[in-house]
Amino acid sequence: MKTNNKHNWRKKLHEIIYEADTPAGKTFDLSLLILIITSIILVMLESVCADGCSPKNFGINPESFFADFVNLLSDNFFYYSEWIVTIIFTIEYIARIITVNKPSKYIFSFYGIIDFLSTIPMYLSFFIVGSQSLVALRALRLMRVFRILKLTRYIGASTNFVRALKTSRAKIAVFLSFVVILCVILGTVMYLVESKESGFTSIPRSVYWAIVTLTTVGYGDIAPVTPLGQFIASIIMIMGYGIIAVPTGIVSSEMTKVNKHEVQINTQSCSNCLASNHRDEAQFCHNCGDHLHEN
Amino acid sequence: MKTNNKHNWRKKLHEIIYEADTPAGKTFDLSLLILIITSIILVMLESVCADGCSPKNFGINPESFFADFVNLLSDNFFYYSEWIVTIIFTIEYIARIITVNKPSKYIFSFYGIIDFLSTIPMYLSFFIVGSQSLVALRALRLMRVFRILKLTRYIGASTNFVRALKTSRAKIAVFLSFVVILCVILGTVMYLVESKESGFTSIPRSVYWAIVTLTTVGYGDIAPVTPLGQFIASIIMIMGYGIIAVPTGIVSSEMTKVNKHEVQINTQSCSNCLASNHRDEAQFCHNCGDHLHEN
Amino acid sequence: MKTNNKHNWRKKLHEIIYEADTPAGKTFDLSLLILIITSIILVMLESVCADGCSPKNFGINPESFFADFVNLLSDNFFYYSEWIVTIIFTIEYIARIITVNKPSKYIFSFYGIIDFLSTIPMYLSFFIVGSQSLVALRALRLMRVFRILKLTRYIGASTNFVRALKTSRAKIAVFLSFVVILCVILGTVMYLVESKESGFTSIPRSVYWAIVTLTTVGYGDIAPVTPLGQFIASIIMIMGYGIIAVPTGIVSSEMTKVNKHEVQINTQSCSNCLASNHRDEAQFCHNCGDHLHEN
Amino acid sequence: MKTNNKHNWRKKLHEIIYEADTPAGKTFDLSLLILIITSIILVMLESVCADGCSPKNFGINPESFFADFVNLLSDNFFYYSEWIVTIIFTIEYIARIITVNKPSKYIFSFYGIIDFLSTIPMYLSFFIVGSQSLVALRALRLMRVFRILKLTRYIGASTNFVRALKTSRAKIAVFLSFVVILCVILGTVMYLVESKESGFTSIPRSVYWAIVTLTTVGYGDIAPVTPLGQFIASIIMIMGYGIIAVPTGIVSSEMTKVNKHEVQINTQSCSNCLASNHRDEAQFCHNCGDHLHEN
Repeated sequence: MKTNNKHNWRKKLHEIIYEADTPAGKTFDLSLLILIITSIILVMLESVCADGCSPKNFGINPESFFADFVNLLSDNFFYYSEWIVTIIFTIEYIARIITVNKPSKYIFSFYGIIDFLSTIPMYLSFFIVGSQSLVALRALRLMRVFRILKLTRYIGASTNFVRALKTSRAKIAVFLSFVVILCVILGTVMYLVESKESGFTSIPRSVYWAIVTLTTVGYGDIAPVTPLGQFIASIIMIMGYGIIAVPTGIVSSEMTKVNKHEVQINTQSCSNCLASNHRDEAQFCHNCGDHLHEN
Repeated sequence: MKTNNKHNWRKKLHEIIYEADTPAGKTFDLSLLILIITSIILVMLESVCADGCSPKNFGINPESFFADFVNLLSDNFFYYSEWIVTIIFTIEYIARIITVNKPSKYIFSFYGIIDFLSTIPMYLSFFIVGSQSLVALRALRLMRVFRILKLTRYIGASTNFVRALKTSRAKIAVFLSFVVILCVILGTVMYLVESKESGFTSIPRSVYWAIVTLTTVGYGDIAPVTPLGQFIASIIMIMGYGIIAVPTGIVSSEMTKVNKHEVQINTQSCSNCLASNHRDEAQFCHNCGDHLHEN
Repeated sequence: MKTNNKHNWRKKLHEIIYEADTPAGKTFDLSLLILIITSIILVMLESVCADGCSPKNFGINPESFFADFVNLLSDNFFYYSEWIVTIIFTIEYIARIITVNKPSKYIFSFYGIIDFLSTIPMYLSFFIVGSQSLVALRALRLMRVFRILKLTRYIGASTNFVRALKTSRAKIAVFLSFVVILCVILGTVMYLVESKESGFTSIPRSVYWAIVTLTTVGYGDIAPVTPLGQFIASIIMIMGYGIIAVPTGIVSSEMTKVNKHEVQINTQSCSNCLASNHRDEAQFCHNCGDHLHEN
Repeated sequence: MKTNNKHNWRKKLHEIIYEADTPAGKTFDLSLLILIITSIILVMLESVCADGCSPKNFGINPESFFADFVNLLSDNFFYYSEWIVTIIFTIEYIARIITVNKPSKYIFSFYGIIDFLSTIPMYLSFFIVGSQSLVALRALRLMRVFRILKLTRYIGASTNFVRALKTSRAKIAVFLSFVVILCVILGTVMYLVESKESGFTSIPRSVYWAIVTLTTVGYGDIAPVTPLGQFIASIIMIMGYGIIAVPTGIVSSEMTKVNKHEVQINTQSCSNCLASNHRDEAQFCHNCGDHLHEN
């Protein structure tokens, strides 16, 4: 009886933690979301206060109303609040392991690894000095926002949007690797052409500059000064302006294709003549007129 | 009789202020447009003259013809002209409240709040020192340009364009929130990786840098200097170059989809001549004139 | 007889200058193209040599082979070559006026004004000191490249491309005016928020910064330094990243629409029931079945 | 018999070098890929160590584990490793010439020239001092990655993608030449308008600035400071923001058009069941199996 009871208790907790249909589950998800955002704000505030906390760091008038809040943020405050967050995250982590049927599946899942990475740094700080700063990895937990708010449901009523992205993913990956290779070549050329004084001190730096330029980011920390260098840079920029059309074109056309529900082609092939590319609602082969199998 | 007369007077004023079909209404709209633009130019000129007005501030030769105009712009000139604009705006605001049937509906509408915000700062300056600078909020009234010039009618003959934007709004919001979360994570990683000397002094600043980089703005006020930092920055830039295709793809495909609805073609074919591609509301075949089946 | 002869001579010259089908016409066009490009290169070289010409200005080793060319470029060289170009352009301008039937039509045409502006500065330099620098306006003649090389024929076999741009021009104009108004408002907000030390010294400068940021150019000459300013800047950047999808979407969808030849709608309306939006090849009204007129 | 034997040996080597279906061919391709990447990394490392190699150049703590690797990278190490790479590339180059039937076809092919350029600099260094630095041209060999990994097959199952790019190539070329001409004109105007102190010292530099601005790169090394200059710059930026829609629109619409050809649907409808939307080469109705009319 006791095991059964325990089983029930696990099942209930599983419902609360992993599902969001019950009021308890919704409350849990909301609390978790608030806690994650709070913990990230704490980490951010601490980084601002790295060299002692004063209203100045926040661009706040020291005599204003908000300055009092800043004075509350001492080193002790951050230390204790981080431990509180760590302990709550630890409890959540253990609860997730206990309530799931195959713990290993959760532990090595995407979210399982993130949950682990955002909990461990504080414990590591006992053994390794400085590992405490890795607490910032907690920012990775922000990705749970997508799961909790079910943001993906806004992306598309159906999975069409995701399908379009998946189809174009390979093309965009090839395109981006083409961009990288182009940047390596152009960066090398600029290293040979430009004077070392203007920042092109090594090939990797020149490649970095080529990426900064081709992607139209353009920091200006490295910029060509010789006429020939500026001429080549101009060509790179105009190229970058032109080839940004390629990934956009790929995604646009994939999405437009997906939109056209009326010509859905399935992967079925006719058992009689092996013709493929049948329309989804086709009942007869378009090549030999033979009756097709049911899908 | 008097009330009726008053009613007529209100009705007439309503026509002038809220409608633009009569000559008086058109004149009112045009005068308002000119006044708004004038008031914004005045606010701009005053901000240029914040520390005393001289032709130099405007990049004008002190001995040129235009310099005489600049000398007209004294502190008194701005003070009086701002009061004139404020008084006219106040009269307009009161007239709008009086002539509308449900004043509360106007007061709490989008344009009502903007009208209020652009009028109040000068009156507040009697009570709160410095609130006068909020006069710049008058720039918000520029949005009336859309209403007065009816610019939206150029956007699309039908409401198709707006429909496309509305449909894709949710998707783009999710996309942009994804971008924000990505920037928080990447900014945190860069804070851990980069040296503090190069500007990555806190996580919020690093997140700011990540946004500047991913959106391909690239000020260069904060830029990575360590090889590892530049390597991660390169990845962020190439990612930003690739994912800009997503919002573009969403809007393009939505608009293309909407375009198709403009001339909806159904799959019906004429029973007499087998012609297809009939318009959705067509009742007769466009090829032979035969009566079509009911859909 | 003489007038007739003169007429023939005018007609022949007209063919050479305005048409490009005859060998003489082609030679004339090519010579003109080379002369325009030469004149622009000359103007560019002169601007590089504004403060005395030395191989250094061109980033060339003073002992290299190319340095000899630079030494040829003296002030005299530029003065004489500019007069040569001006005289040839003047002859061409007069020839164009003589050979055309309605000279006023050419003089006030787009290319006519450009031709005039690129010829007059040298003559003006006798009367107004410094007007010689306006010789740089000759760069405007570069636009003749489109006419001479008939580049537009590459843009689209039909006029579909141009039609798409024309249809979307109004939409893009409204979109860009929306961007400008947004920048005025955001620039004003940033002027109120940011410290004057970081470059936001006046509203026009802040509006300039907002345009630099929203269009993702990002010079970095003006950049926010206060936390609140950087926060608002981040929002502007993400907005800019999102709304760049709008003009792209407009043009893409217009072009895709134009591509679909299969649903061409004409402007004809049925003489019987006044129904419009008939398909181009329709012979019968889709509404009443009445026979349509021939197009 | 000997010639035949030799012929067989050549044929075998040809299979290994030029084809990738046999295990030996795959091993050869993989080794070549690793060697190319290694040689490029070596060239990059050498450029970092141009002024003596120390862990500092790599942003590595001199006392860390990685610092030992850096100390291995002496001038001798680079000299010998470059010779090793050069000799292997030379052997490969000769092998490619021997095994191909028409050597001249390979030598003057795109990859043939790249292979030659990446091999020759080390030999040239015996005759011309400094030509050794051209070893960086080896980066061009990176383009073999596309061939070896057959990356292009990811771009599109069919050659549709390439066809779309080819069709839009001419349009984009015209568009980019339009951008260049626009930049020449705008750069010239800015040279006349802006003060020389802010970087607009010559027309070519101003044209360079116009390209940097219109393509939304925006280094900030040259930036307008006068009000009029900033006003014109704002117009250029907003133009750049608007016209980036044009290449994107071209590519998007071309790809959407090509997509439609992938599953070409004709307007035929079945004479038996009136089903429409048949694939172009369909001979039988997909709905009832009836024989379709000839197109």
